[in-house]
Amino acid sequence: MTTTPDPFTVDDYRARMDRAARAAADAGLAGIVVAPGPDLVWLTGYRPTAVTERLTALVLAPGRDPVLVVPTLEAPDAARSVGAPALTLRDWTDGKDPYDVTAPLLDPRGRFGISDNAWSMHLLGLQSTLPDTSYVSLTRSLPMLRAVKDTAELERLTAAGAAADATYEAIREVPFAGRKETDVAGDLADLLRHFGHEQVDFTVVGSGPNGADPHHEADDRVIRQGDMVVLDFGGLKHGYGSDTSRTVHVGDPGAVEQTVHDIVRAAQEAGFQAVRPGVACQEIDRAARAYITDAGYGDFFIHRTGHGIGVTTHEPPYMIEGEEQPLVPGMCFSVEPGIYLPGRFGVRIEDIVTVTEDGGRRLNDTAREMAIVH
Amino acid sequence: MTTTPDPFTVDDYRARMDRAARAAADAGLAGIVVAPGPDLVWLTGYRPTAVTERLTALVLAPGRDPVLVVPTLEAPDAARSVGAPALTLRDWTDGKDPYDVTAPLLDPRGRFGISDNAWSMHLLGLQSTLPDTSYVSLTRSLPMLRAVKDTAELERLTAAGAAADATYEAIREVPFAGRKETDVAGDLADLLRHFGHEQVDFTVVGSGPNGADPHHEADDRVIRQGDMVVLDFGGLKHGYGSDTSRTVHVGDPGAVEQTVHDIVRAAQEAGFQAVRPGVACQEIDRAARAYITDAGYGDFFIHRTGHGIGVTTHEPPYMIEGEEQPLVPGMCFSVEPGIYLPGRFGVRIEDIVTVTEDGGRRLNDTAREMAIVH
Repeated sequence: MTTTPDPFTVDDYRARMDRAARAAADAGLAGIVVAPGPDLVWLTGYRPTAVTERLTALVLAPGRDPVLVVPTLEAPDAARSVGAPALTLRDWTDGKDPYDVTAPLLDPRGRFGISDNAWSMHLLGLQSTLPDTSYVSLTRSLPMLRAVKDTAELERLTAAGAAADATYEAIREVPFAGRKETDVAGDLADLLRHFGHEQVDFTVVGSGPNGADPHHEADDRVIRQGDMVVLDFGGLKHGYGSDTSRTVHVGDPGAVEQTVHDIVRAAQEAGFQAVRPGVACQEIDRAARAYITDAGYGDFFIHRTGHGIGVTTHEPPYMIEGEEQPLVPGMCFSVEPGIYLPGRFGVRIEDIVTVTEDGGRRLNDTAREMAIVH
Repeated sequence: MTTTPDPFTVDDYRARMDRAARAAADAGLAGIVVAPGPDLVWLTGYRPTAVTERLTALVLAPGRDPVLVVPTLEAPDAARSVGAPALTLRDWTDGKDPYDVTAPLLDPRGRFGISDNAWSMHLLGLQSTLPDTSYVSLTRSLPMLRAVKDTAELERLTAAGAAADATYEAIREVPFAGRKETDVAGDLADLLRHFGHEQVDFTVVGSGPNGADPHHEADDRVIRQGDMVVLDFGGLKHGYGSDTSRTVHVGDPGAVEQTVHDIVRAAQEAGFQAVRPGVACQEIDRAARAYITDAGYGDFFIHRTGHGIGVTTHEPPYMIEGEEQPLVPGMCFSVEPGIYLPGRFGVRIEDIVTVTEDGGRRLNDTAREMAIVH
C-alpha cells in the first residue's frame, strides 16, 4: 500500500524560490530572509543538523539569484541539499561578523519578510548592521506562502493522514484501563513509526480530567474504566505532517459523555461542511463554534478551530475569528473543535481537510463516532 | 554509582530570577524577556511541550515580580512547573493580541535583553506595540547569565561527563570495520541512553575523509580498515549537557595519522593548561591554536576552540579569538581543537572543563591517546 513518493528535485525548489521572490515583490517587499526551519526546508530542502547561534539565512530578492549564508563548518552539508544547485552559498567563518556577510545581499533601505522563527539575535544583528532596513514576519507579510499545496505535497499529506488513520484503528485494540497515559502514548508513537512516520511530534492521551486541558500531553495518570480519553497524535511522514484526534471511552459512556461527544462530532461536521473555495478561514471557525455555542457549551470551546499543516504540523492558514483569508484549492488544515469541562473530561475530534474545487476532502476518515475501548 | 540529584526547588528558581533581574539592572537594562528554551528552563524549570507561534514569555524587571505570559491552553502546564510559585502567570486566549498583554509589563521606553532564540515574529510584535522600547540579545547583554554553575549544576554536569566517558569506553569495544557510520552512531546513542541520558543531541562518526568535515554527523559510508574515525557525542542527563570527542583508528595508524593526532592531543592539553580564573576566554583558543599553528597545521584548524555547556550543549562562554571575558570559577566549557585535512581525515579531541579556584578540572577524563579499534 505504501509507496515512497518521488523525491523533490532541484527544479521543485527553484520554482518555490522563484514563487517566493515574486510573492515578496507583489507584497512590496525588497525580499525575504529565511532561517533554518520549515520555510528553509520547503524552499531548499536544506535542514541543518542542528540549529545553533551561528547564522544560516537564505536571502531571496526579486531579480537576484538566491544566496544561502551559511557557517563555513556547515557549508559542505548545505552544498549536499537537493536545492543547493539553484542557489549560491556564501560561507562565513567563526570570528567573522555574519551580518557583515549578509548585508551586501540586502537593499540597505529595504523592507524584508523574515521567518517567524528566525532567532531574535539575528534580527537584531541585521537591524543593527543595516539600521535603515525594516522587517515583518513572514506570517504577517506572506502568510500563505506555503499554504497552497501542489500535487506532490498533497500526495505526501494524504499518505501521512492514512498512516495516522491506521494508527487510530490499531490503538483502539490496545488495553487502556489500568495503564498509564504515557504507556498508551508510547503505543501511539510506535504505531506512527510503524506506519511510516520518521518523526513523531505529539501523542496526546488525555484521560478523565486530564482531557479537559487541551494541551495536556500524557502523564502518569492510570486510565480507569469510565474515563473519556482524548487522543491527538501526529508527526511527519516523508517530510509532511499528520494530525488527527479522536475521543474514545473506556467502557460504556454515560449520557453526558455521549451528549458532549455528539455535539463535538456535529460541530466538526459543520466546520467541514463549510469548507469550499472563497470562504474566509474564520467561517470554518464560526460554523463549528456556532454549533457548540447553540448547544450551550460555547464557554468550553477554548481554542481556535484549526491550523494549517504541511512541512510542519502547525502553520497558516488558521481557522480563527478574524482571519479573512479566503480558502484556495490545495490548502490543507485541521478542523478540530472541542469541549473541555474542567475537572471532568474533554472531547476533541479532528481531521485534516484539503480544499478542493467544490468543497473539502478529508485526509483523515476513520469513524468519528465515539469508540469504546477497554 | 549513578544517583539521581536532588531536584531543583522553587527557591533555586527564585534565586536565579532574582540574580537575572539584578544582572539586568547592572547592565543598564529595564528588564529581560525570556522565550521558551534553555533560558526559560534555567530560570523557571518550565519547558513547554512544544514551541509554537503562540507567545510564551517571561518578563523579569528589577523591583517587579516575575510574570510569565502564556497561552491559556498552556497555562495549566506552566502552573505545574517547579518555578511557578515564584512567578505570576498571565494568560492570553487565541484571538487576542499577546503583545497587548505583554506591553503593560514593559517600561515603554526601556531597553530589554531578549533571549537569543526568541522568535523574530515576537520581537517584531513587541517593537511594533511599544515602538520606543529597544532590545539587545541576551548573549550580547548578559552573556554570562548562565555561565557560572553552582554546586548542584556542577554535580549534574559531572554526572553527564561520566556517562559520556562510560559511553566512550564501551564504544571502543564495538566493531567498526565493515559497518556504516550510522550503525556506530546508533550504538553511541544507545550507550548514552544506557548511561542515563534522557536526550541525545549529536552522535558524530566521521570516518576517513568524512572526518575532515567538522560538522559531519554520520552517513552511509562503510568504515574501513585504516580509517581514522572522529567520535563526538553528547546530550542531556538530568537536564545538563555532555559533549566529548575522541579520535580512534581502525587498525594500526600510519605515521601521518599518528603525528596529527599527537599534535591535536598536545594542543588540547595546552588549551586545558591555560584554564584558570581571570584568564580571558580567547587565551584558551590562543593556547591550543598556537600549538597547532607552530606545528604547521594552522590552516586546518577551522573552528573555535570551545563553547560553554549547561542546560544546553552549546552556550556562552565561547573560547574564541576576541572573547575577552575572564574565566570565573564554576564556568564549564569544551576544549576541543582539531585538524581537518580535506579528502583525507580529521582529528578532534574534546573534554568539558570546569574552572576551579586555581586552574581547571576535566569533566571528561578518558585516555586521550589514539585508541585502536577493530
